Amino acid sequence: MNSIKVIAFDADDTLWINETYFNDAEKQFCILMENYLSHQSTSAILFEKQINNLPLYGYGIKGFILSMIEAASQITNGTINIKATDHIIRIGKDLLTKPVELIDDVESILEKLQGKYKLVVATKGDLKDQHRKLHKSGLGPYFHHIEVMSDKKELDYQKLLKRLDVQPEEFIMIGNSLKSDVLPVLDIGGHAIHIPFHTTWAHERIDFEVIHPKFTTLKKLSEIEKLFNI
Amino acid sequence: MNSIKVIAFDADDTLWINETYFNDAEKQFCILMENYLSHQSTSAILFEKQINNLPLYGYGIKGFILSMIEAASQITNGTINIKATDHIIRIGKDLLTKPVELIDDVESILEKLQGKYKLVVATKGDLKDQHRKLHKSGLGPYFHHIEVMSDKKELDYQKLLKRLDVQPEEFIMIGNSLKSDVLPVLDIGGHAIHIPFHTTWAHERIDFEVIHPKFTTLKKLSEIEKLFNI
Repeated sequence: MNSIKVIAFDADDTLWINETYFNDAEKQFCILMENYLSHQSTSAILFEKQINNLPLYGYGIKGFILSMIEAASQITNGTINIKATDHIIRIGKDLLTKPVELIDDVESILEKLQGKYKLVVATKGDLKDQHRKLHKSGLGPYFHHIEVMSDKKELDYQKLLKRLDVQPEEFIMIGNSLKSDVLPVLDIGGHAIHIPFHTTWAHERIDFEVIHPKFTTLKKLSEIEKLFNI
Repeated sequence: MNSIKVIAFDADDTLWINETYFNDAEKQFCILMENYLSHQSTSAILFEKQINNLPLYGYGIKGFILSMIEAASQITNGTINIKATDHIIRIGKDLLTKPVELIDDVESILEKLQGKYKLVVATKGDLKDQHRKLHKSGLGPYFHHIEVMSDKKELDYQKLLKRLDVQPEEFIMIGNSLKSDVLPVLDIGGHAIHIPFHTTWAHERIDFEVIHPKFTTLKKLSEIEKLFNI
């Protein structure tokens, strides 16, 4: 850990709650469709749309709204009124105005790390939405900047490190997704800490255990105090 | 110009064609609505939706599609089938897969500037879409990185300069929008070059002339060769 210069934090479900809101939104959508299809089948079709749309739309709420609209048109086979899209868009816009609820004791931890390390936010999602959330969170001043990434694969992290002008061994990523925050970072020679959130989007799940000398799992963010001796 | 270290290029309608495609897409949407409303009135409603949605959605094609769907629901007052959203989404997805057509002799200019200056792309729009276009353009290797900005106001440029670790007088922005690429950059003490594109989105237009010691207007990108003595 002595080599670390930059600590990057994932945002959604690491700094603040996110997936919980998405789950609620999906439930509202399932209720809107329940005269046509079961909740389970609606969720399955929506998930398929989201995954198929990822290469074009990337991550974030706008793509989620568009996928719900596509799913509604398919599920109802055109028998629901176009006014249903007003409802769907409202579900999405609600997501874009949700309060930002911090996880654990994040602010006091950032306060202790500040000045000792360059702190950045490295997240996927909609650009505007992530900037909004960082601003609303009040955590902005602790971070050098927020990096909204179009994906979190090896190449994306390599680009990030180049921009930060930092070597992999000087970089640590902290996040709730093994697939996006941990594996690609370890693969390029960086360090990673996994802090699970109680719910994970199916697309982010992996079904094997990660064991690696540069990898640590913590139960909650405040446990990094011990790791960094702060 | 001797102080310049970083040259930032706007992307849409500066490096490659964009507004032309948006105009075509809007025309297709107007045709879809023409049994309900004139092209002109449809365009006006769509524009209003786009502007109202900017604070939540930010810039880019996904927000444009969502604004078209909102407009369609309002214009037809629910009398068009929800299947029309399939058509609207197709118009939007077409935009997301358009070829990238470079403007002027951009590649040979970048080749001459490369190595002498740090070159970056500084653009608004959808994150994924702008990364796609940079990749498709083949111009990626000339740039240190692409900076997709949620807006282009003074504060956004100040953050950009902080991230680039560069002083305003060492920074020059080249773009087609006086409102987004020129005025805020001059306001924070940077240099700016305006290269008009033949068509400009109404939201980006200003109705006064810019006269400033750090400001230049050029007819086309290749004219910067003289300015930089390359």
